[in-house]
Amino acid sequence: MSNQDPGVELCSSPMLREPLSAEQAADLARVFKAIGEPVRVRLVSLIASHAGGEACVCDLTGAFELSGPTISHHLKVLREAGVIEGERRGTWIYYRVRSATLHALSSVLLPAESGAVTA
Amino acid sequence: MSNQDPGVELCSSPMLREPLSAEQAADLARVFKAIGEPVRVRLVSLIASHAGGEACVCDLTGAFELSGPTISHHLKVLREAGVIEGERRGTWIYYRVRSATLHALSSVLLPAESGAVTA
Repeated sequence: MSNQDPGVELCSSPMLREPLSAEQAADLARVFKAIGEPVRVRLVSLIASHAGGEACVCDLTGAFELSGPTISHHLKVLREAGVIEGERRGTWIYYRVRSATLHALSSVLLPAESGAVTA
Repeated sequence: MSNQDPGVELCSSPMLREPLSAEQAADLARVFKAIGEPVRVRLVSLIASHAGGEACVCDLTGAFELSGPTISHHLKVLREAGVIEGERRGTWIYYRVRSATLHALSSVLLPAESGAVTA
């Protein structure tokens, strides 16, 4: 599962320098929408800051008053958007943040003169 | 209108270093959600890359097959999230991107070792 291609190839050119195409905008909007939800923002933050930069559902449920399946649903949305990736080891799937995606998102939000962060 | 406070004070500490509080996550999710829509991503890009870094609805409608009121609705969502600000001059309201908001968003997406971009 860790090698799956989420189908999102983000352009990391700043969106502030020249108008995005409709297709570029749709790709970006999809990822911004995935993290545009309070539980999912917290999940990304929890996973990234967890020991070793990875966490399983068992590490995450304690932070929320939400059921395991609800947490798993949010993790699936993040995974499908390419924000996180998961790897099954034994009973659990361990999730980690896809740095390339977050770097690309970060870069497109900067003005051209700040220079793009290469993802 | 350009001086209005959109009520969003984003923390620019990387969300990847330590777990966000529920409140920080809600503030961030609100802004990500605002730009998590294809038309609104394109609007931000069009405004920022327009001559002088500002644009009125009259400059924007040509890029979409959408009515003026629909464009205005999307601009309102972006304004309320603090992504853009508007200033009335004569007949039109001229919108520009709020760089501080986009810098803060960009910073929180970077890992701690990349250093935060100060907004």
